[in-house]
Amino acid sequence: MYNYEYLYDFTCNFFSKMGCSPDDSHLIADVFLAAELRGISSHGMIRIKDYYQLWKANRINVKPNIRVVHETPSTAVVDGDGAVGMVAASRSMEIALQKASGTGSGWVSTRGSNHFGIAGYYAMMALKHDMIGMTMTNANPLVTPTFSVSPMMGTNPIAVAIPAGKQPPFVADFATTPIARGKLAVAEKKGETVSYGFVQDKNGNPSNDPAILKSGGSMLTLGGDYEHGSHKGFCLSAIVDIFCAVFSGANFGPYVPPSVAYLPVLDKKVGEGTGHFFGAMRIDAFQPANVFKDRMDEWITTFRAAKPAAGREKVIIPGDPEREMEFRLRKEGIPLIPAVAKDLNEIAEEMGIEFTVII
Amino acid sequence: MYNYEYLYDFTCNFFSKMGCSPDDSHLIADVFLAAELRGISSHGMIRIKDYYQLWKANRINVKPNIRVVHETPSTAVVDGDGAVGMVAASRSMEIALQKASGTGSGWVSTRGSNHFGIAGYYAMMALKHDMIGMTMTNANPLVTPTFSVSPMMGTNPIAVAIPAGKQPPFVADFATTPIARGKLAVAEKKGETVSYGFVQDKNGNPSNDPAILKSGGSMLTLGGDYEHGSHKGFCLSAIVDIFCAVFSGANFGPYVPPSVAYLPVLDKKVGEGTGHFFGAMRIDAFQPANVFKDRMDEWITTFRAAKPAAGREKVIIPGDPEREMEFRLRKEGIPLIPAVAKDLNEIAEEMGIEFTVII
Repeated sequence: MYNYEYLYDFTCNFFSKMGCSPDDSHLIADVFLAAELRGISSHGMIRIKDYYQLWKANRINVKPNIRVVHETPSTAVVDGDGAVGMVAASRSMEIALQKASGTGSGWVSTRGSNHFGIAGYYAMMALKHDMIGMTMTNANPLVTPTFSVSPMMGTNPIAVAIPAGKQPPFVADFATTPIARGKLAVAEKKGETVSYGFVQDKNGNPSNDPAILKSGGSMLTLGGDYEHGSHKGFCLSAIVDIFCAVFSGANFGPYVPPSVAYLPVLDKKVGEGTGHFFGAMRIDAFQPANVFKDRMDEWITTFRAAKPAAGREKVIIPGDPEREMEFRLRKEGIPLIPAVAKDLNEIAEEMGIEFTVII
Repeated sequence: MYNYEYLYDFTCNFFSKMGCSPDDSHLIADVFLAAELRGISSHGMIRIKDYYQLWKANRINVKPNIRVVHETPSTAVVDGDGAVGMVAASRSMEIALQKASGTGSGWVSTRGSNHFGIAGYYAMMALKHDMIGMTMTNANPLVTPTFSVSPMMGTNPIAVAIPAGKQPPFVADFATTPIARGKLAVAEKKGETVSYGFVQDKNGNPSNDPAILKSGGSMLTLGGDYEHGSHKGFCLSAIVDIFCAVFSGANFGPYVPPSVAYLPVLDKKVGEGTGHFFGAMRIDAFQPANVFKDRMDEWITTFRAAKPAAGREKVIIPGDPEREMEFRLRKEGIPLIPAVAKDLNEIAEEMGIEFTVII
């Protein structure tokens, strides 16, 4: 187990060594560690190597000039200038929060960015300001529209954070696919099949093979197949892609650049980098803040009181599992799988800093 | 087959007879007929009887004082004063469009409303203003959160309309459940079973019985079961409910009033009526309008060009099937199922107007 501070300081030093400013390095470390603490390790320390390799390939700008390129009182387009995704995303969300302070709501679409870690982090930035936060991002294509075999979309997540009063906040953060890409990799390593409804083969036939992406297969949208509403998952994924990339001038659909250096830069561009979308709404733009919080508390307690299904303990309010995980890991420490620790040790050595592998 | 004008005039006359103003009656007819033309007959003429019976039971206010009760430059809460849902919704969307004209975006949460027909209608109101439109509504509870057997949510739809240039607009309009309630009724009448993943029995066990709702069963959220991401469908449905009802002061979750008179008014209220949420964003709040439209055209043509799966003709862009249906039905006429035509004939007679049943 690693303690939080050790991993935070390492990550911060690592990005400083890459040339990021002290402020940016702290922010990046905060996002990476938030992923680990919330139990979303697929977006945590395992991704530092990807960022390192992108940087070595000159595909990351560690001294970006992030700027607003178009705006109205409640909206903006931000150019991330090829920044580390966390940096472009955090600045963009701050602009959304400022706009919301002024006019009740703020909406920012961002281009020229990169993989930004967990979407929920930026949505949650709104909570301490008594605002609702929203985040979306597009990502490199793995997922097909209903009735197609062409990977056209990323797992395109949506995050929404809503403040409550005595209750903890509502924090939803979910991909618009039935499962995360990482779950396929785990099943493949274990030699297991997966349920139908997650992937299809190169011709569009149902498949239970977690390795199918390597032979022309693709991931399906939330719903799985048409009969079970995959076209609704496609709508969601498409909306995310359009809000993030058509609005901002980022690459959309199949043109979103890879977030790993071992995949080549695409020949065709339809914009700049990866796209994100951020929203903020003041709760007192709708109700006096105390009324809003009381109502949100009542919503949460009402839903918590729903009768569990046979063999189930309780209804889970979005944000509960991640908060419970964070509480536990802050006390017990953060586990890293040995391969990740080993990778970090190697790249730390290349950078002239230290990372101790704990077995 | 009925022609469009006949059904429009009948609907308009019918709501006028109920006491709605001429303007409101025209608007209501427009929404009902839009549902029929777009092939969503579950939200079309079949619902007039429900409205008639709610009105007879004094559960509809045909002379509402719809008003803004709270606002900022980019947001508002609207009290629908018990109006026909179409009237409250249309006024609310107009306010969102006005706010967007001024500050780039407008966001309105509405309470004290009723069933508003198809969500897509209000989202599409934005298109002619070169704006993106969004609509959500909550609805009376039929759907359970993941791991629960308590119906806590309606089929809570989301609609998003996005203008394009040479291409037709992108119009997504979908329930946050795998299937519509109406499809269960159809299967039940045919004596057929349904696929697993749509409903569960009273204990939360998977079921393929379309009549299961009558014996304590319930509908599942998009995703179907936990393994296939039903908790993501629950997140979506919960977000819709909160935006529509916590924001506005409408009833949320299990307290949303029934949209049919044969179900009694609930004993407990946590707000006023049914809740909706509306959004509008100017496309030129993000890009010069012509650039936005060109990019949206390119998005659509890119996705249309995705390779079809074996045995499938093409990828469907959201809005395509409804537009094609409208084109056809405007020429060929609108079919009504005999039972609906008979009901309309009966209630027309009660109202002292005419409705001719065409066999």
